[in-house]
Amino acid sequence: MLNFSDCHKIIEAKLSQLGIAGKKPVELYEPISYFLRLGGKRIRPVSSLLACNLFSDDVTSAIKPALAIEVFHNFTLVHDDIMDNATLRRNKPTVHAKWNDNIAILSGDAMQIVAYQLLGDAKPKLLKSLLTIFNTTALEVCEGQQYDMNFASLDNVSLNDYLHMIELKTSVLLATSLKIGALCGGAPEKEAQKLYEFGRNLGIAFQIKDDYLDVYADQDLFGKTVGGDIAENKKTFLFLKALELAKGEHAAILKRAINNEFTNVSEKIDMIRKVYNELTIPQITCNKIAEFSEKAFEFLADVRVKESRKVNLLEMAQKLINREK
Amino acid sequence: MLNFSDCHKIIEAKLSQLGIAGKKPVELYEPISYFLRLGGKRIRPVSSLLACNLFSDDVTSAIKPALAIEVFHNFTLVHDDIMDNATLRRNKPTVHAKWNDNIAILSGDAMQIVAYQLLGDAKPKLLKSLLTIFNTTALEVCEGQQYDMNFASLDNVSLNDYLHMIELKTSVLLATSLKIGALCGGAPEKEAQKLYEFGRNLGIAFQIKDDYLDVYADQDLFGKTVGGDIAENKKTFLFLKALELAKGEHAAILKRAINNEFTNVSEKIDMIRKVYNELTIPQITCNKIAEFSEKAFEFLADVRVKESRKVNLLEMAQKLINREK
Repeated sequence: MLNFSDCHKIIEAKLSQLGIAGKKPVELYEPISYFLRLGGKRIRPVSSLLACNLFSDDVTSAIKPALAIEVFHNFTLVHDDIMDNATLRRNKPTVHAKWNDNIAILSGDAMQIVAYQLLGDAKPKLLKSLLTIFNTTALEVCEGQQYDMNFASLDNVSLNDYLHMIELKTSVLLATSLKIGALCGGAPEKEAQKLYEFGRNLGIAFQIKDDYLDVYADQDLFGKTVGGDIAENKKTFLFLKALELAKGEHAAILKRAINNEFTNVSEKIDMIRKVYNELTIPQITCNKIAEFSEKAFEFLADVRVKESRKVNLLEMAQKLINREK
Repeated sequence: MLNFSDCHKIIEAKLSQLGIAGKKPVELYEPISYFLRLGGKRIRPVSSLLACNLFSDDVTSAIKPALAIEVFHNFTLVHDDIMDNATLRRNKPTVHAKWNDNIAILSGDAMQIVAYQLLGDAKPKLLKSLLTIFNTTALEVCEGQQYDMNFASLDNVSLNDYLHMIELKTSVLLATSLKIGALCGGAPEKEAQKLYEFGRNLGIAFQIKDDYLDVYADQDLFGKTVGGDIAENKKTFLFLKALELAKGEHAAILKRAINNEFTNVSEKIDMIRKVYNELTIPQITCNKIAEFSEKAFEFLADVRVKESRKVNLLEMAQKLINREK
C-alpha cells in the first residue's frame, strides 16, 4: 500500500515529465512549467492515488486523471492570482507578476487544455463518466470563485452563503479527486460517491481550518502573516460567525472594520481577535471543523473495503485537519 | 441534404437552448449568454454539420460536437478581446468592456468547460478520438494567439512565420470542425482527414482574404474601417509581402510606418496602399488566396462520396473566398 509520501513522489515525477518544457512558443509554455514547479502539497492528486489504492494495488490507471486534476487546480490558481491581484504564491512571483496579465490568461487557458489532454488518457471505458464528473466540478469551481469575488462587495453574506462558496471553490475538487481515483481503482459508483462525500466534508473542514489558522496560528510556524484575513476584511467563517453573534460594543468594532475606520492594522487585528475570543469564536470554529471532519470520517468508515486499507487516507485527513500551518 | 442556412438555423436554435440563461451566479453565466447571442457567421459549427451530412443524412450526432467548437471559439474571442484590449465585437461591447476583466477571464474559463461538456455528449465510441483531436487543436489555437501577440513587438517576422501563425490561430479550428463533423457522420479516418486538409487550406485562404479586404474592400460594403490594419501597423500578409519585395523609396515608406513616423492616418493608409499597388501586392495576394483555395478544393474533390453531396460545402467555401466583406 502507498502512503502520502509515496504518492507525492509519483505525482512530482510525472508532473516533471509532462512534455511541456521546451515547447514553443516559450511565452506560452514556460509559465506553465514554472508554475507547476512551484510545488505545493499536491493534496488532490495524492488523494486520487490513495483512493484508487483503496480498491486496487495498482494505481497506474489513476495517475493521468490525478495529474489532470492537479494541472486544472494550478490553472485556476494562475487565473485567480490575476483576479485577486496577488503577486506572490509559495513565496515566488505569480505568473502575471513575473510575466504579464496576457501571458497569465493565455498560459492558464492552455493549462486547462493540458488538463483535458491528461484526462483523455483515462481508461476508455471510464472516459465518459470521468469527463462528466470533472466538467461538473470544474464549472462549480468557477462558480465558487465568482461567489468569492461577489462577496468582497456584499455586506449581507450569510454563513450559509459562505459555506456554499467554499464548498464550490475548494471542496468539490478534493471530492472529485477522491471519486475519480476510486473509479479508476474499480470502485462501484456507490462506493466512489462515499469518497466524494468524504472529500466534500473534509474540504469544507480544511477551508474553515484555513480561516482559523489565519487568526490563531503560531506566527513562528505559519508561512503567512497571522491576521492577514482580518487586515484585508476578508469574509471568513470566523468573521461572519462573529457578525452573526455580535451585539453592542462587539458589533460596533466589527462595523468599524467593515467601514475601514481602523488606521492601525495591528490594533485592528488585536481588537477583532479580542471580539472573536469574547464571542467564543475559536471554540465555535473548532466545533464546526470537528463537525465536518466527523461527517467526512463517517463516509470513509462506510466504504466497503478492509479497514486496514484506509489507514493512509485517514492519516492524510487527520494531518489536514490537525495541521498548525 | 442541408444547406448553409438550414445548418445555421439548427446551430442558432441549439445555442439558445444551452441551459445557461438564468444560471447562478449571474455574474458568471450572463456574460456567456450575452456573448453567444451576439451572433456571427457560425462557420465552424455549420461546417461540422455540412461535413457530417456528406456521409450521413442524419446530422444529429454532430450537433453537440459542433456546438462545443462554437462555444470554444467564442471563449477564445472573449479572452482575445481582453488581451487585444478590444472594446467592440460585432458592434457590441466586448465582455471585458461591458463588465470587467475579471468577469471576462472567469466567464471565458467557464465557457471552455461548457465546450467540453458539449463534447462529452458525443457518441461514446467516438469520444476518445474527438477529444484527442479537439485538445490538439485547442492548444494550437492558444499557440497561434501567442505568436500573434509576439509578432506585435518583433521586427523580423517572415511570411512563413505569418502563415504558420494564421494556420494555428484560425485555420486548424475550421479544419477540426470539418473533421469532427465527418467522423460523427461515420467517415473513415482517411476521408475525415481529407476534410481536415480542406478546412486547413480554406482557413488560410480565408484569413489572407481578410487581410486583403481590410485594404481593398468597398467601404460601403465593409463593416469595419478600410485601412484599419495599416493604421495599426498590423503585420498582415500584404504588409509582410511588401516588406519582402520593397526597395528604395518603397522600403523607406514602409519603414516610416513601422517607426510610427506618419502623423496623418489617412495619408499613411493612402501611401502604403500606393506602395502595395506598385509592388503588385493585390495580385500576389489574390494569387496566394487562389493557391490555398485550389489546394482546399483538391482535398474536397478527393473525398469518396458522390459529387452531388458536396455542393453545399463547395458553395460555402466559394462564398468565404469570394466574399466582399
